[in-house]
Amino acid sequence: MTKPLIFNFMAMVAPSHAATGIWRRPGSTALNYLQLDHWVELAKLAERGKVDALFFADQFGMAEGAWDLVIGNALHYPNGDPSVLISAMAYATKELGFIFTNSVMQQHPYTFARIATTLDHATKGRLGWNVVTSPSSRAAKAVGVEGTADHDDRYKWAEEYIAIAYSLWEGSWEDGAVLHDRERGVFADPAKVHAISHAGTRYRVEGPHMSEPSPQRTPVIFQAGSSAVGQAFAGRHAEGVFIVSGSPEAARKKVASIRQAAVDQGRSPEDIVVLEGLTVIVGSTMEEARRKAKECESYVNSEVVIQQLSAMARIDVSQYALSTPLSELMAHSQGIRSVLDMVIDTMPPGEVATVNDLLHYSARKMRIVGTPATVCDEIAAYAAAGVDGFNLMYAFMPGTFDDFVDYVAPLLQKRGLMRSEYSPGTLREKLFGKGARVRRSHPAFRCRAG
Amino acid sequence: MTKPLIFNFMAMVAPSHAATGIWRRPGSTALNYLQLDHWVELAKLAERGKVDALFFADQFGMAEGAWDLVIGNALHYPNGDPSVLISAMAYATKELGFIFTNSVMQQHPYTFARIATTLDHATKGRLGWNVVTSPSSRAAKAVGVEGTADHDDRYKWAEEYIAIAYSLWEGSWEDGAVLHDRERGVFADPAKVHAISHAGTRYRVEGPHMSEPSPQRTPVIFQAGSSAVGQAFAGRHAEGVFIVSGSPEAARKKVASIRQAAVDQGRSPEDIVVLEGLTVIVGSTMEEARRKAKECESYVNSEVVIQQLSAMARIDVSQYALSTPLSELMAHSQGIRSVLDMVIDTMPPGEVATVNDLLHYSARKMRIVGTPATVCDEIAAYAAAGVDGFNLMYAFMPGTFDDFVDYVAPLLQKRGLMRSEYSPGTLREKLFGKGARVRRSHPAFRCRAG
Repeated sequence: MTKPLIFNFMAMVAPSHAATGIWRRPGSTALNYLQLDHWVELAKLAERGKVDALFFADQFGMAEGAWDLVIGNALHYPNGDPSVLISAMAYATKELGFIFTNSVMQQHPYTFARIATTLDHATKGRLGWNVVTSPSSRAAKAVGVEGTADHDDRYKWAEEYIAIAYSLWEGSWEDGAVLHDRERGVFADPAKVHAISHAGTRYRVEGPHMSEPSPQRTPVIFQAGSSAVGQAFAGRHAEGVFIVSGSPEAARKKVASIRQAAVDQGRSPEDIVVLEGLTVIVGSTMEEARRKAKECESYVNSEVVIQQLSAMARIDVSQYALSTPLSELMAHSQGIRSVLDMVIDTMPPGEVATVNDLLHYSARKMRIVGTPATVCDEIAAYAAAGVDGFNLMYAFMPGTFDDFVDYVAPLLQKRGLMRSEYSPGTLREKLFGKGARVRRSHPAFRCRAG
Repeated sequence: MTKPLIFNFMAMVAPSHAATGIWRRPGSTALNYLQLDHWVELAKLAERGKVDALFFADQFGMAEGAWDLVIGNALHYPNGDPSVLISAMAYATKELGFIFTNSVMQQHPYTFARIATTLDHATKGRLGWNVVTSPSSRAAKAVGVEGTADHDDRYKWAEEYIAIAYSLWEGSWEDGAVLHDRERGVFADPAKVHAISHAGTRYRVEGPHMSEPSPQRTPVIFQAGSSAVGQAFAGRHAEGVFIVSGSPEAARKKVASIRQAAVDQGRSPEDIVVLEGLTVIVGSTMEEARRKAKECESYVNSEVVIQQLSAMARIDVSQYALSTPLSELMAHSQGIRSVLDMVIDTMPPGEVATVNDLLHYSARKMRIVGTPATVCDEIAAYAAAGVDGFNLMYAFMPGTFDDFVDYVAPLLQKRGLMRSEYSPGTLREKLFGKGARVRRSHPAFRCRAG
C-alpha cells in the first residue's frame, strides 16, 4: 500500500476564499463566516472525513486592489482573526489539526508565542503555524510600518521573528522545569527556566516565555513562499509547504526544488511535506461536475479577474474585448507575455486562446473536475509526481467539502491514498510519524536549553 | 424589589489567581488551566448559576518579584492567553458574558481591534474588554519598550490605543455599509467604508477596520485603575470599574468618586457599573466556612506575602519576626506606616496587630466568610453602599464557584439581589438594559461615521 496522502481543508474567515463570489450562491452559508456554528460544523465534517487539518489562510490588512472592487466583492476582506476561533473547533473534535496563518506584521513575537503555546495546549498538540510576511502595502500602512516593499527585507524580518519564537518555545523552559509538586509547593524549578535575551534589527526581547511547554512546543511550521528567498526560508524552517502548480508535471518540479532547498539547509528531503492547492469539484457524472464548475465561475465578477490580471501583467486588461485573441495581447505588451509564458508553461496547448479564457485560467488551474473515480485518478497522478498531500479549497460552501467526505474520501481510502483512521498523537506525529517535537535537523532544535 | 446586582466569576489562565498556592490543594483542578474542558465546565457552571460574565484577569509579562519566588510559587506566571480560549466557552453557552484583559503593551491596536470584533461576533455580542497598561518593567522589557516606568505616560498610551480602537470599531464601517446583496453581487457599499487615518505618539494607522461590524461594535469597556489618572481614564471610558475596597464603607467612598469622575467627563453616574472584588467562602455553618478560609491560607507561602508586603512598604519585612507588633514596625519605617494607615482605614481596630496578621490582611480584606445567609447579608451591605455588583474570586478550584451557584445564588435570588433569568441581548444590554451600542455620552460614540 502507498503511503497515505495528507488532506487539509483550506478556508479563510471571510465571505469567500479561492472561489471569489461564492457567498452569492443561493443557500450558501459562506456569509455565516463569523458564527461559531459555521466553523464547528466544518471541523466536525472534516474529522468525520479523516481529514488531517483545517488550514486557515488569512489576509492581514485590506487586500490590494481598487477600493470599490475589494469591498463590493468581498475579496478576502472583510475578515476575522482565525486564532480566536480555533478553541471552539478544537473542543468539538479530537484528532483534527488546526493550521493558522499569522503574519510577522501582525503582532509582536513575544505576544504571538504565548498565543501559539496556549492554542497548542488547548488543542493537545494539534497546532500548525503558516508563516507569512504580508506583502500588501495596505497591511504595512495599517500598522505604521515603513519599507516593507522590499521582498528580501520581509524575509529577514521573518527570520528574526521566527528565531525569537523558537527561543521562547524551545529555549526558555527546559525539559524537567515543570514540577507541579503539590506536596512541597513547588510549581516549577526556577533554575530550569531561562530568560531569552534578543537584541536584533526589529525586536528586543528580554524575559522568559510566558507559558509552560505545550505538547509540540513549536507548532508545525508551514510556509508558501515560491521566490528564491522564500524557498530558502522554507528549506530552513518549513515542515509543510503549500504550492499551487496546476499540474502533476509542474508539481514534480516544485517538489524537487523544495526538497533540494531542505537538503541545502542540512535537512532531509522528507522533512518537508509538500501540499498542492486544489479545488475538487465532483459530480456523479462528468456532466454534473462540469455544470457545478460552470456555476462556480458564474459567481466570479469578471472585473475582479481583469483587475487581478492587470496587476500581474502590469497593463490595463480591461481595454481589450473578452474575445481578443491572446496572440494580439502578446504583441502589445511585454508584461502580458510573461504572464502568458507562465500560463502556457503549465497548460495543455490551445486551452487558453482568448482574454476570456485567461480570466478563468487561474481558478481552473487549481481545479480538478470529475467523478469520484476520475478525481481519484488525478490525485493519484499528483501523488506519483511526489506531492505529499493537498490543501483542498472549496468552490461551494456548503457542498465541496461535504462531497469530498462523502464521495471522494471513501474511494481514496479504498485505494490506499488516504488514511481510514487517524494516527495517534500530535499533528507533528500524525504528519511525520515520530516525535511530538521538531526533529534534530530543524533550526528550532538548536534553540533547546539544558 | 431592588435592582439585581451583577455577579462575575473572575479567573486567570494560570495555576492560581487571587488565592496564591491553591493549585496545591489535593483534588484541585487548578493545574488544568490550559485544558479546554476546565474552562468550558467553568463557563457552564457560571451560566447555570445565572452569573453575568467570566472576567479574565491577565498578567502580560512575567510578574514582578524575585525570580525563584515567582516561578516556584507560580505567581500569575506561567500563564496562557485568555483571548484564544473564549470561543470554546462561548460555543458551550448562550447568555454568559466574557470579559478579557488586554494590555495596550500586548499588541498593535489594529490587530487587537480585529481580535475583539471577531470575538464579539463569535459570542453574539457577549464581549467585554478590561483595559490595562502593564506597569511591570518585565513586561516592558519583554516587548522591548522603553520608558514605561512613568504611570501618567502609560495612561497617555492607553488613551491613544483606545482612540484608535474606537475609530476602527465605530468609525470605519458605517451603519448600512453591509449589504450582503447576493442578487447584485454587492457585499458592502464601498462609499460607506472609511479608512481610519491616525498619526500619533506611538502609532500610525492607515486603513479601514478589517472586520464588518459586530453586535456591540465596541466591547463593553472595563477598567480597574485607582490612581487619579486611572480614575479620570475610567470616568471617560469605563462602563464597568473593578475595585477592591474591603468594606462597604470604603466601597461607598470609591463608588462616589468613580461616579463623580464620570460626571466630570459629561457622563451620567449610572453609566458606570462598579464591581467589588470578593472571595466568598461559604459553609453550612460558620465553623465550616472558617475552616475553609483557614485551609485556603495554609497554601499561601509566607515568603510570597512578605515579598509583596516589602515591595509595598519599601522595607525588608523579612527581618522582623512574625509576632512583631505593628507599632514597632511603624516606629522603624515611614513606608510601612503608610501601608498600615491604608489598612487601618478599612479594618476594624485591633484586627491587625502583628506582622503575621498583616501578611494575611490583603487576602482577608477581599473575603467574605460565612453561611449562605450571612454572606447574603454582607453582599446586601455592599449593595446598600452603592456597589453595582461583584467580581467573585475563587479560594478553591473547584469549590468556591460551585458553592456560590448552589448555596448563595438561590438565596440572593430569593432576596431580589440577583437575577433569576438572564435579560435578553448583548452583554451591554444585560448590564445596562438599553442598546447594544455605546451610549451617546461615551467617547466611542463620537467616533461614529456617517
